[in-house]
Amino acid sequence: MIIVAERLNATRKAVREAIEKKDEALIIKEATDQYAAGADIIDVNAGAHPDREEADMTWMIDIVQGAVDVRISIDSSSSAVIIKNIHKLTKTPMINSVSLETKKLSEMRPALTEREADVVALCMDDAGLPKSADQAYDNALRMVKTLEGLGIAREHIFLDPLVQTISADHTKGLMVLETIERIRADIQGVHIVCGLSNISYGMPERFLLNRTFLVLAVGAGLDAAIIDPLDKKLTTAVTAAEMLLGNDPYCRNYLTQYRKNNIIP
Amino acid sequence: MIIVAERLNATRKAVREAIEKKDEALIIKEATDQYAAGADIIDVNAGAHPDREEADMTWMIDIVQGAVDVRISIDSSSSAVIIKNIHKLTKTPMINSVSLETKKLSEMRPALTEREADVVALCMDDAGLPKSADQAYDNALRMVKTLEGLGIAREHIFLDPLVQTISADHTKGLMVLETIERIRADIQGVHIVCGLSNISYGMPERFLLNRTFLVLAVGAGLDAAIIDPLDKKLTTAVTAAEMLLGNDPYCRNYLTQYRKNNIIP
Repeated sequence: MIIVAERLNATRKAVREAIEKKDEALIIKEATDQYAAGADIIDVNAGAHPDREEADMTWMIDIVQGAVDVRISIDSSSSAVIIKNIHKLTKTPMINSVSLETKKLSEMRPALTEREADVVALCMDDAGLPKSADQAYDNALRMVKTLEGLGIAREHIFLDPLVQTISADHTKGLMVLETIERIRADIQGVHIVCGLSNISYGMPERFLLNRTFLVLAVGAGLDAAIIDPLDKKLTTAVTAAEMLLGNDPYCRNYLTQYRKNNIIP
Repeated sequence: MIIVAERLNATRKAVREAIEKKDEALIIKEATDQYAAGADIIDVNAGAHPDREEADMTWMIDIVQGAVDVRISIDSSSSAVIIKNIHKLTKTPMINSVSLETKKLSEMRPALTEREADVVALCMDDAGLPKSADQAYDNALRMVKTLEGLGIAREHIFLDPLVQTISADHTKGLMVLETIERIRADIQGVHIVCGLSNISYGMPERFLLNRTFLVLAVGAGLDAAIIDPLDKKLTTAVTAAEMLLGNDPYCRNYLTQYRKNNIIP
């Protein structure tokens, strides 16, 4: 399981304020805590103020890279912010995200090909969010063809089936799980990634629902997740699920995490 | 999800002692508690003393049926105990269990056909436990053919893929999940049931592992489980998984259970 750590995101109040006050200590603490908790990649979103986002992203990347020796995911809705900052990354970049929206994809093209970056590819096009597993799978297939056409290898493509809210439509969880299963069965060599929190929006006990959904998604074929690695019940669910799915030879990782007091039931 | 409640089992010390002392109160309490917690079927295992099991089973069935209006699963390794007691059941019986072991199956035949009972059918034969998902699936297919040959409809067949211990072989969880997926995809109309506790034998935090495995199994196609319905974290996992899999229209059951304080994260 590839863990993309989500806490350094300007939609969180503490991070937004740190960006505004140029509070390096908070950024360093979030980066080091997430790395220590097992993050493979640290997502960096500096979108507090659109007019300053490019400079804020540069500032955050410098701090994170100064604090920990870890891969970074540049997370921005602005192609310019990504293009201007990707060259700063010392390790293989992840770009979060691209979609089949034609304008955005053509803007992003130089950044995509320049650094052999990993790409989070949303299964949506100009028409918006997919309405069925068929449509999401069709978007995934078109996304892979488009990105391969740009010279991006499948091992760098992280398809995101786009988790939607179950309180609005109780079939949306199943839709994502079916999309994951179909991608895993039929599109060889790609990664599948998602965020979780949309699933439980508007429902009670959101953390419980998020981690139960993650277990189901890992069972369906998810191999990467954008999560909070400091949520030990969530990482416990991942560790347990990976073991139960046969991905932990001799149950070694589970037992190691247990001895480190990281298994929280 | 069909919940078969497992607590009235003579392998539990309290139940064995209640059988020995003819302590009706404990049997009544376990039956009423499990029924109140949502049991669809109450499993009754009276195997404390082989020479008295038949009479003990009669005694327990009378008490459970006197206490709650619920279906009963007669759980015994003795064909005689099942055959002698099945006529006592006022509701559709479940028989736990039969397998492809030829001698036992031929002994059980009268009991199976007499009452249109549900049958827990273990995916094993005279050769013992299956060693692979292929073998378990092959046993499942032979089991269905054999039971259909005896006149038992598929809707009464509860295939049990036989959960084995992951601490002895880290592929055993995946083996069961693959067996469940294949049965669900290829053998129409049957139920799939399992117990959980074998999976975590010898590992720390067994309850966590059991409920994580249950979520994965429900995701793979399990539609019945032999569990302790008083374990609220476990029933919460079932309720949450069912909702996330689209089996809870308008999320109504999840929200109802939440209001009843039955959702324990």
